[in-house]
Amino acid sequence: MENNSQKQAGDRAARDRRQRVQSASIGMLVLKELAALGGRATLTALAAQLHENPAKVHRYLASLMEESFVTQDAATQQYCLGPQCISIGLAAMRVADPIRLSEPSLVRLRESLEVTCFIAVMGNHGPTIIRFEEPGLPVTVNVRAGSVMSLLWSATGRLFLALLDESRVRKLAKEELARAPADLRALLDLTDPIGQLQREVRAMGCATVKDTNLKGISAVAAPLFDANGHLCASLTALGATGGFDSSIDGPIATALRKEAETISAALGYVPDHAKVVSGCV
Amino acid sequence: MENNSQKQAGDRAARDRRQRVQSASIGMLVLKELAALGGRATLTALAAQLHENPAKVHRYLASLMEESFVTQDAATQQYCLGPQCISIGLAAMRVADPIRLSEPSLVRLRESLEVTCFIAVMGNHGPTIIRFEEPGLPVTVNVRAGSVMSLLWSATGRLFLALLDESRVRKLAKEELARAPADLRALLDLTDPIGQLQREVRAMGCATVKDTNLKGISAVAAPLFDANGHLCASLTALGATGGFDSSIDGPIATALRKEAETISAALGYVPDHAKVVSGCV
Repeated sequence: MENNSQKQAGDRAARDRRQRVQSASIGMLVLKELAALGGRATLTALAAQLHENPAKVHRYLASLMEESFVTQDAATQQYCLGPQCISIGLAAMRVADPIRLSEPSLVRLRESLEVTCFIAVMGNHGPTIIRFEEPGLPVTVNVRAGSVMSLLWSATGRLFLALLDESRVRKLAKEELARAPADLRALLDLTDPIGQLQREVRAMGCATVKDTNLKGISAVAAPLFDANGHLCASLTALGATGGFDSSIDGPIATALRKEAETISAALGYVPDHAKVVSGCV
Repeated sequence: MENNSQKQAGDRAARDRRQRVQSASIGMLVLKELAALGGRATLTALAAQLHENPAKVHRYLASLMEESFVTQDAATQQYCLGPQCISIGLAAMRVADPIRLSEPSLVRLRESLEVTCFIAVMGNHGPTIIRFEEPGLPVTVNVRAGSVMSLLWSATGRLFLALLDESRVRKLAKEELARAPADLRALLDLTDPIGQLQREVRAMGCATVKDTNLKGISAVAAPLFDANGHLCASLTALGATGGFDSSIDGPIATALRKEAETISAALGYVPDHAKVVSGCV
């Protein structure tokens, strides 16, 4: 039978462990709120933001300063995020790999929507599929990992064309346009084929096609952005046109956009409308 | 007189506070060591790196995961630095201002060496002084905050010329060379004046001049690097040639380089030789 004082000691040890880990969380919250205040703040402002008393916040700041996560500005006495935050931020960016982070999304999309889906990045010959997932009953398509997609007639390609405004992308698009057969060119705007595609995709925030790249196939592509706000990959779903709703507000585009936003957040991307307006520097 | 049980309670409260803050430090150490391991590691590897038992490290990781500082890779079970690390890293980079961070160094240099010293950044007309500190008995020079320095004949300019390899810098240097009088051009290499200056400065890691830019004035300039390894400013000291040792191993160049390294570290710069070799991605 358990001795009462042993039980008390056990309870105390468990409470101790909880409190310690809770304290680690408070340290993290101090960093988070300091970042939310633009990376620098007075003790008073930071304590108010945290709803904690300044003496307690001050103790945590002292400990964060010891590890160089926080520095104090000699002139203004403000606390600033320090060089150690930059180090772990850079290390986090190096491991923020869109392929690894997309894995769970590809599985969810395949299972919930029964669609073929893939991740493509910009390769030196054009948008290139690097990870490909098929449902139990796949639609037969002649693309797979390694395939380079058309910049002008695939949803994936149009996404890169519109959101990766680099000279090499424009050059590849012009070359593709110049050597395309008349029937494909007829599908694009006559006076400004590339500019018109770019404007459409930018307005929608993703790209959709129906039978333009592969006969009988529709597709939707949504952008993955990195911490610097650059397009780093596309998340694309495709299916037989008959059973695939490629409309911009349909269930496939909606699910795809949601997964793309989750991956972008994991890559450190902060959408413009969510950015903290910083008053400093 | 203090009551014994009150004293015990007071001791316990003080110990509690110490332990809590200590726990916050452990949370920070977990992040630091995870970064040192390349941003991702198994629990076993991380616990070994921290010299802690895995169960304890696991509790801290759970708390870091709650705040998105750490994520766990579903496929490999490895722990990775998460999106919140990227956010605070980006916020820290935004507030890492070379001017603010140089302030204590300028004061120390002025007081310990009795030299005039300044910070310059690359402006659109050339290297431009943005912060200027003079000792009690200043040497009279016709430069001050706002002055644009010669790219070819000042130590500050040569530093930017050698370490900021941008087309606009090369263009400005060529223009300056073309309109320079013959006596100044005679001070430079005859066959490759710009290339020779660049090679000399790159070999030394800083730039020194003696009477080339201002008559009777010597100067030493050391580089300030940001978290991306780019030259963001110069830290320059100058004085009357008679009493100013501009040699590369002299006390002024040594002190200047040491201060420049301190500022660069605060900006998040990691010298090449100190970089962690990461085995992932």
